[in-house]
Amino acid sequence: MSELKNDRFLKALMRQPVDRAPVWMMRQAGRYLPEYRATRSQAGDFMSLCKNTELACAVTLQPLERYELDAAILFSDILTIPDAMGLGLYFEEGEGPKFRKPVRTASDIEQLQVINTASDLAYVTDAVTMIRRELNGRVPLIGFSGSPWTLATYMIEGQSSRDFARAKTMLYTQPELMHQLLDKLALSVIDYLNAQINGGAQVVQIFDTWGGALSHAAYKEFSLAYMQKIVGGLIKQADGRDVPVILFTKGGGHWLEAMADTGCHALGLDWTVDIGSAKARVGDKVALQGNMDPAVLRADPATIEREVQSILNSFGSGAGHIFNLGHGITPDINPDHAKVFIDAVHKFSAK
Amino acid sequence: MSELKNDRFLKALMRQPVDRAPVWMMRQAGRYLPEYRATRSQAGDFMSLCKNTELACAVTLQPLERYELDAAILFSDILTIPDAMGLGLYFEEGEGPKFRKPVRTASDIEQLQVINTASDLAYVTDAVTMIRRELNGRVPLIGFSGSPWTLATYMIEGQSSRDFARAKTMLYTQPELMHQLLDKLALSVIDYLNAQINGGAQVVQIFDTWGGALSHAAYKEFSLAYMQKIVGGLIKQADGRDVPVILFTKGGGHWLEAMADTGCHALGLDWTVDIGSAKARVGDKVALQGNMDPAVLRADPATIEREVQSILNSFGSGAGHIFNLGHGITPDINPDHAKVFIDAVHKFSAK
Repeated sequence: MSELKNDRFLKALMRQPVDRAPVWMMRQAGRYLPEYRATRSQAGDFMSLCKNTELACAVTLQPLERYELDAAILFSDILTIPDAMGLGLYFEEGEGPKFRKPVRTASDIEQLQVINTASDLAYVTDAVTMIRRELNGRVPLIGFSGSPWTLATYMIEGQSSRDFARAKTMLYTQPELMHQLLDKLALSVIDYLNAQINGGAQVVQIFDTWGGALSHAAYKEFSLAYMQKIVGGLIKQADGRDVPVILFTKGGGHWLEAMADTGCHALGLDWTVDIGSAKARVGDKVALQGNMDPAVLRADPATIEREVQSILNSFGSGAGHIFNLGHGITPDINPDHAKVFIDAVHKFSAK
Repeated sequence: MSELKNDRFLKALMRQPVDRAPVWMMRQAGRYLPEYRATRSQAGDFMSLCKNTELACAVTLQPLERYELDAAILFSDILTIPDAMGLGLYFEEGEGPKFRKPVRTASDIEQLQVINTASDLAYVTDAVTMIRRELNGRVPLIGFSGSPWTLATYMIEGQSSRDFARAKTMLYTQPELMHQLLDKLALSVIDYLNAQINGGAQVVQIFDTWGGALSHAAYKEFSLAYMQKIVGGLIKQADGRDVPVILFTKGGGHWLEAMADTGCHALGLDWTVDIGSAKARVGDKVALQGNMDPAVLRADPATIEREVQSILNSFGSGAGHIFNLGHGITPDINPDHAKVFIDAVHKFSAK
């Protein structure tokens, strides 16, 4: 492997001093970029793009050509694991992901097999390996997975949901069954992320997109406990470096202290949390990643710069801040505004 | 006016001791009740039901016939104010509220008139007066309104939204325009809630359903500031009693301290917050209302009882807890399960 030329992101994740805040954007390889849309139309549908190693590699690298980003993130989907379990993932334009065979009964769950990434999801590890090689040490590569609870919501509902009626009914009426499902998912995620680390991922992030829909008590029992299990099961070092783990529960700002106690290295924050208060709460346990509302990117450059400064001021001095959005960049954003954002982080965080 | 026979709710809102926790449910007059569905089909569509004084009164009282509730809440919609402003509210089955004329430009906002409840929304105050008379002192009557920010999101988007793209674009690119809109809405809400108080409402609640979608800083500037203005403009006493004000920002658990400083009497909590921690944070400034996940009502009676006990235990001893769900009861709930919930609050909170 080539030597890493920019380790700003890895250092900040370990709360070591850096010359300026590293920055990347969730969903940075995405529909807001015309070059992404061109590659996507070449591939056909979204999953065909994920499964095409060369094209998945190409779109991963696209935002790095435009912007001075400090990390690349594998181009893939959070629902590859349930797809590999045989649920039949598909996308309907403008409707989000759906499963042909949702998981609803005890027998559905008993029949699910913990995945073997090497055989079931080789297209993901192939992409990781190719991206890492093509990056050639330019910036570190982030691997990722959905959290067990988040995967479970899609698997049970069969699609996106507003109130998670079926998933929560199972959680409250058949908690043992839900635990059985979450356990299989946690083991699958461990295998999946370790395969990504072995393939070349230098950081991993767990996306708990729907943990914030749970009650205080249910979050700990049904989402956080399984993320903690995953953190405990991951490969700790690769290429002689620590492999930092980032936990991101959208809407999880109430639970930062508990999240910081899982053994992870950093927490992703959405924009509802003041990052300065978050830092005071977690102390020196973890680094913090975030947390500008992606909606700010619709505003004029001066407003974008002001919001970046405001977040930097709130974080204050000290190590351990990775600048990011509080959720994925949306398809309607002007790519020039993303540049204003990234350049503003460079300019205003320089020591 | 008849003398109030059950003042448990009013006392708890003022943090005075009561024999057991008062309980009501958001959306308690609603589609989960067969008698509601019967009255609704008699009225025609949803807004015809809201505008029919006798039928709106009838559905308000229906849940009190089934359950030992400690409050009634006016049957109406949060979007009556923008409807009265001429935006043309309508409902499409399964799609939520929509406006025929959304508000998008400076000229749209300039043309909006602060409402005069007496002339524009007499159907609401007529319903309040009739309900209060029919209640005959049985329990107190709650009036309500949407918060300015929440009303603004629907007015700008023209319908429900996931990411509030248009509303947030206006907020970040034309903040003065957004403030102009919010100010007209705040003045309208003051007039509207005062008319409800004059008509007989003994408590008022402000529903800030979408405040939780804002960043920490934007929430204070664009939602909380206007709720504070409303609290300051409301009639303080009626029938020789204080008229308590409840603020409910869904997803607002980060901001309880600031909400408690508005001069309101109680905060509504969704289920993501631990009510014991919330109590420790707001001290003796306000009462707390909440906070069971309505999804728990899909579970078996033993689970419902256990969740009620868990919330009561978390709140602990001391005055100022009004038991409620963390959001509205959903149409799929079995009415017998609502009874289990209400009876459990009675049983387990009795001193």
